[in-house]
Amino acid sequence: MKTKPVAAIIGAGRTRFGEHWEEDPKAMIGKAGMMAVESVDKGIRRKDIDACYFGSFLYQVTNKIGLIPGYMSRELGLNIPMINTEAACASGGLALYDSCIGIQSGKYDTVLVAGFEKMSDRQDKIIDDLMFAADPHEFESGYNFPGLYATMMTRYMYEYGNGDPKCEEALAQIASKNHHHCIKNKYAQFSSKGEVSVEAVMNSRVVANPIRILHCSPISDGAVALVLTRPEVAKKYTDTPIYIMSSQEATDHVSLYTRSNITGVMATRLAVRSALDDTGLTMDDIDIAEVHDCFTIEEVFFLEDSGFYKKGEAWKNIYESYESFKGSGHIPYVKKGKELTVNLGGGLKADGHPVGATGIRQAYESFKQLRKEAGENQIDRDVNTAMCHNVGGTGGVATAHILMRDIQ
Amino acid sequence: MKTKPVAAIIGAGRTRFGEHWEEDPKAMIGKAGMMAVESVDKGIRRKDIDACYFGSFLYQVTNKIGLIPGYMSRELGLNIPMINTEAACASGGLALYDSCIGIQSGKYDTVLVAGFEKMSDRQDKIIDDLMFAADPHEFESGYNFPGLYATMMTRYMYEYGNGDPKCEEALAQIASKNHHHCIKNKYAQFSSKGEVSVEAVMNSRVVANPIRILHCSPISDGAVALVLTRPEVAKKYTDTPIYIMSSQEATDHVSLYTRSNITGVMATRLAVRSALDDTGLTMDDIDIAEVHDCFTIEEVFFLEDSGFYKKGEAWKNIYESYESFKGSGHIPYVKKGKELTVNLGGGLKADGHPVGATGIRQAYESFKQLRKEAGENQIDRDVNTAMCHNVGGTGGVATAHILMRDIQ
Repeated sequence: MKTKPVAAIIGAGRTRFGEHWEEDPKAMIGKAGMMAVESVDKGIRRKDIDACYFGSFLYQVTNKIGLIPGYMSRELGLNIPMINTEAACASGGLALYDSCIGIQSGKYDTVLVAGFEKMSDRQDKIIDDLMFAADPHEFESGYNFPGLYATMMTRYMYEYGNGDPKCEEALAQIASKNHHHCIKNKYAQFSSKGEVSVEAVMNSRVVANPIRILHCSPISDGAVALVLTRPEVAKKYTDTPIYIMSSQEATDHVSLYTRSNITGVMATRLAVRSALDDTGLTMDDIDIAEVHDCFTIEEVFFLEDSGFYKKGEAWKNIYESYESFKGSGHIPYVKKGKELTVNLGGGLKADGHPVGATGIRQAYESFKQLRKEAGENQIDRDVNTAMCHNVGGTGGVATAHILMRDIQ
Repeated sequence: MKTKPVAAIIGAGRTRFGEHWEEDPKAMIGKAGMMAVESVDKGIRRKDIDACYFGSFLYQVTNKIGLIPGYMSRELGLNIPMINTEAACASGGLALYDSCIGIQSGKYDTVLVAGFEKMSDRQDKIIDDLMFAADPHEFESGYNFPGLYATMMTRYMYEYGNGDPKCEEALAQIASKNHHHCIKNKYAQFSSKGEVSVEAVMNSRVVANPIRILHCSPISDGAVALVLTRPEVAKKYTDTPIYIMSSQEATDHVSLYTRSNITGVMATRLAVRSALDDTGLTMDDIDIAEVHDCFTIEEVFFLEDSGFYKKGEAWKNIYESYESFKGSGHIPYVKKGKELTVNLGGGLKADGHPVGATGIRQAYESFKQLRKEAGENQIDRDVNTAMCHNVGGTGGVATAHILMRDIQ
């Protein structure tokens, strides 16, 4: 390994994602936080937590609260520093990124990092609220998020699809795969929905052509939390810490109309490449990835922006991989014999997408899979290296994290 | 000095505070940011900026935007990491705190940190919006912020005022002093208002008894930015960097009704004491302080919570100091010959309070005063050490920073 780890994850907790009408938002955060603290194998005292990081997007409009640090203080019974971050749907990723910096600074030994969103309460108003993650001109032009991603998907299919119906089919296969992956994930929003066939996706209602309802991630409520500590002391708390080898963030224009290219995400390219360069790894070294599939086209973009597949060729490889592996436990993407399994718990699509929680949920899922603690949903091959990829808006921001179990 | 500096401020820029109906929020942030970058004495290239920190409170509801990192990216033409933080009225202080951690981590050499708020546009709705910084139960009970602080002020006067009319007069003197301080501050919201007498404050309209309109900070628009770098390289950019010697944050319950004491602010006590302990300084070593006087009672709390005056005795000392020094250039607080001058540019009260900008504005003012660059408003004695104190809500969070010019 080129570099030393920046932090170690030693505990993780989460709520089920879905509709939690009855829950108080602050109590949900507290629940996930306490689960994370209590999950630390060799135990940790509350007073060993030096600071708390938090990521959420719409809490002011959805829950009519601000000043999250003060609520965390009361929930934890601690007066420690708390840092609340927002980067739209990458709020969780940003909180994780910022908490790694906190550990690296030497200011804190051990921190709690949580992500949260409670969206159901807003009912149909949430569709407009989410447009805070887009440029106001896009909102005023009548765009919503399916519309923005439909513009990107249309352009991608036009430039690279060659009129081949398999391109559109590949975009449906992603949804079908991620629903398949979530069935054994007891915390997933759609685990009880069962299999969703490629045909079902392709015949589902059009939301913003060519995006159909089953290409979209859902509106969700949920909270996730992790306990992070300095790598040097991690074994004091558990025999199997998961190391964060690199933590990266990059930004780009919020608006699609000022970007030179909309068939991929510049911020993803920059963040993922920085993480790979930082560790000296290539995408071929990554075993599993939790990818930001808010719409299935984003998973395509990741596979190309990361360099795993060549630009414009992901859809063909997705199609071939799906055809080869459908019906398996987990359906990997393959490239010359190398397997990369993406969104093992169902991704945003099927596990759910309480936006501020997503970036932390990705690390939670990777932590569980790398520790072989994913229960019935444990991947059936030995995996050691994971990537987490979180996007805000249509790509105004992206974060990338590389996680490893064995680091010799 | 017990410790080494955590960061150095090498540039600073700000807009005038006040009503900026015509300005685009994103352009205001860009303007302050570019002013800060261009103010660096020996010059700095935009590409030398490694990351950007940002603090704002109500941008989602007031300006219908989120995902600030993406806007900053476009404004600066950079794809660098950007970290957006929120802690109500301490959002600026939190951004400064978090940016110091960024420098300390070694991940960044040089960062831009900005604070911003644009509130005028919301007109009278802003009074309800601001209640996101309070507990929802307080809002539902009919409280607004003047009401919450009136509760604290009433209790303080009951416990410590001894029925002496000078206690209430001291609370008016603070407002009069801060208006007096702002007159020569060309960026202040109320510089053209001129002197505001103690009588004017005491005869102004009651907002929430005993708080009168002239005890309150105003609704403001404004942006402020700083350039921070590693202390070791600061002299490459300027011969007179201002060093941040300690950066601290503490939290407490958001709600007044769950605190055991409301005649002071626990978070202030913890943050200020940490900053003093960290540097080995006492309040007697602090020459000037920028204090969170959202309502004048907060300035009283600071003087007691920091330990400069004994609990319950600040008002007597404020009264005596004011009577001794009224009519001077700046009116200090005195204690056994020691002078502490507070809110040299007018504080939140008279310079203005665009909430997310305030914590950064405090560091801006301190930077200018310590560098002797405050122009007509320059303090007329030599000062070397400043404290900045920013509070969120009624004390759910507080930050404290100690700044120094000469650090031998």
